[in-house]
Formats: sequence, structure tokens, C-alpha cells
Amino acid sequence: MKPIGPVNALYPMPTTIVGVTVNGKPNFLAVAHVGILNHGTPQYLSIGLGKVHYSNAGIHENRTFSICMPSEDLMVETDYCGIVTGKKTDKSALFDVFYGELKTAPMIRECPVNMELRLHDILDFKTHEIFIGELVQTHADDSVMTGGKIDIAKLRPLLFDMASVKYWRLGPAVGNCWNAGKSLKK
Amino acid sequence: MKPIGPVNALYPMPTTIVGVTVNGKPNFLAVAHVGILNHGTPQYLSIGLGKVHYSNAGIHENRTFSICMPSEDLMVETDYCGIVTGKKTDKSALFDVFYGELKTAPMIRECPVNMELRLHDILDFKTHEIFIGELVQTHADDSVMTGGKIDIAKLRPLLFDMASVKYWRLGPAVGNCWNAGKSLKK
Repeated sequence: MKPIGPVNALYPMPTTIVGVTVNGKPNFLAVAHVGILNHGTPQYLSIGLGKVHYSNAGIHENRTFSICMPSEDLMVETDYCGIVTGKKTDKSALFDVFYGELKTAPMIRECPVNMELRLHDILDFKTHEIFIGELVQTHADDSVMTGGKIDIAKLRPLLFDMASVKYWRLGPAVGNCWNAGKSLKK
Repeated sequence: MKPIGPVNALYPMPTTIVGVTVNGKPNFLAVAHVGILNHGTPQYLSIGLGKVHYSNAGIHENRTFSICMPSEDLMVETDYCGIVTGKKTDKSALFDVFYGELKTAPMIRECPVNMELRLHDILDFKTHEIFIGELVQTHADDSVMTGGKIDIAKLRPLLFDMASVKYWRLGPAVGNCWNAGKSLKK
């Protein structure tokens, strides 16, 4: 064990596509620097966006955004959303877009799960804005549901790791939470 | 695609063991509700802890904590840290504990990667406190390094999913970031 400098090792993270209305049009960007803040209702989630991004102004203006969960099948489109900027490229036609309760949080029919969020707060860091959203509604495709719940094995999320600069697949389940450790009790 | 209520679908998340000094002793708890806020130096990470937890007071007091990354091999111990509370059980002897620059952020030799953080801010939600830490130093075992970087395939992180209440394994890499989408350009 040795010190390697302040290297962020909190990976993999789920790769998401964030949907925003900017200048009256839907725009999408790939975001894997996300967070689960609390656990409960209302549920708060965070996305960290560099201030250089085109989408930030749209969240400030409309105070809404979506977090869409692409499956592995959408890797090429997701990555594309991360390498071209809405400043120069219109990404609104890339997907079949739909809206839910919030009228300015564009979501993606090709993503099996989509969440719409109302802006709760913004944390202002030097180079990044952290947008904290209150989850308003989740939209899921029947194809990824099992027994009324989202089935992550069917969703097949795209996982992001910064060190390898790669997307990774989810492997199999290996144990039960709040259970596997019982053998160590007493 | 249909609305299923405000269900948090931002999974899987990396399962971590958070280390804190409480009442002068190291304590450890399993935390998968984490976040990457910005990207850069200093690097800020978040952990969301229910206010009922024993560890919160220790972070308030010492203004430090660690985020330790267990591999799959440590699933039983990690889960145990999530099902017994430091209020009733002394978890300090569970691991081979070490310290880095911060003298009150206990880390775990059995975890191949450990991060020590200085408290930057606390977000106060109704039932949860979100502790935002500034990453001060990362400690990694040679066994999970490749070419000077943390190799996530060697680390074999433990991934958490709330819907299935299961731990999941990382699968193989499936594509290159900032590259896979180039085929859609022009």
C-alpha cells in the first residue's frame, strides 16, 4: 500500500445521458460524475458539469433536467453525446425525445429508464457546477422490469471508469446486501 | 415506457467502506450512496449518511473521513459493516487499520484502494447529512496497479444495486470513452 497522490478512485460510475432544454431545444450530454445524496422521498441526485458545457445555462433557465440511463446497446450514441458540444452540433434529432410532468426535461425513448428532476440547488465549485435535482418521476420500459422493479441485469447499464478511459459491462450478482455479512455476527 | 413513480434508478454504485474516528476509535460503515462532484484538483467526493448513523458525530468532530474501496473478496466484511452499528459493536478490530496524512481518517489494509478526505462542507437534508470531502491522498496496493494507474479489473469493485438488494461484479470493458461515438460524427 503506497500513496499515489489524490487520485479519484470512486469508479465505476453509471454512465448517464443528461437531457436539458437549451435555447428552446433539447440537448443531451454524457455524464458519469453523478451522485446519490440521500435515500428517501423526496430523492435527491447530483450531476457535476464543467462550467464550459453548453447545457448549464439551460438548467439555470428552466430549473429542470433529466437523467437517462442508456443500456450497453446505446454506447455509441452515449459516447457521441460526450464528444460533440451542443454549441456547435444539434443533438436534438439523435433520439426519439419525450417529456413527462416537467415540460423542459427531455427524455429518450431509446433509454430503458429515464428520470426527470426539478432543480433543488446548485453547488458552485471553481470549474464545475453541481446541479442537485429532486426526482419527480421515473419512466421505465417494461422490457427492463421484473416484478414491478427495475431489473439491472435487463437494463445492462454502461459503467464508466476514468483510469482506463473505458466503458464497462455489469457482471453477475455475487451476494445479498444486509445479509452476506450475517456470518460475522457474534 | 411508463411512469413508475420517483424511483431512484442511478445504479449500480460502487460499494465503499467509510472510515471515521468516533469517540477516539476507528469505526467503519458500508456506503454506496456516494458521488463524484467535480473533476480536477482539488477533487471533491460526497457520501450520504442517514442522521441515525453513529459515524456522523465523528466526522463533525474530526472533520475527516476515508473512502475505502473493497474488492469482491471483502464482500462479507463490507456487508457486516452495513448491518451492525458502531453504537453497539466495536468494528475497530475487524480490519488492519492504518492512517495517512490525516490522523483521524482510518483506512483498511485489506482494501486495495483507500482515499483520505478532509471535510469541505455538509449538506443538511431532512433525514441525511451529505458530507463533501476534499480528496487529500489516495493509497493503493501494487497488486491493483497497471502502468501507474489503478486497474479496475484487478481491483474488482463491489457494485451495489438497491432494487435487487444485491452486490454485483464488474464485467468486461466494452468500449473506449471519447472514442466509441466518433463513428456518428458528420
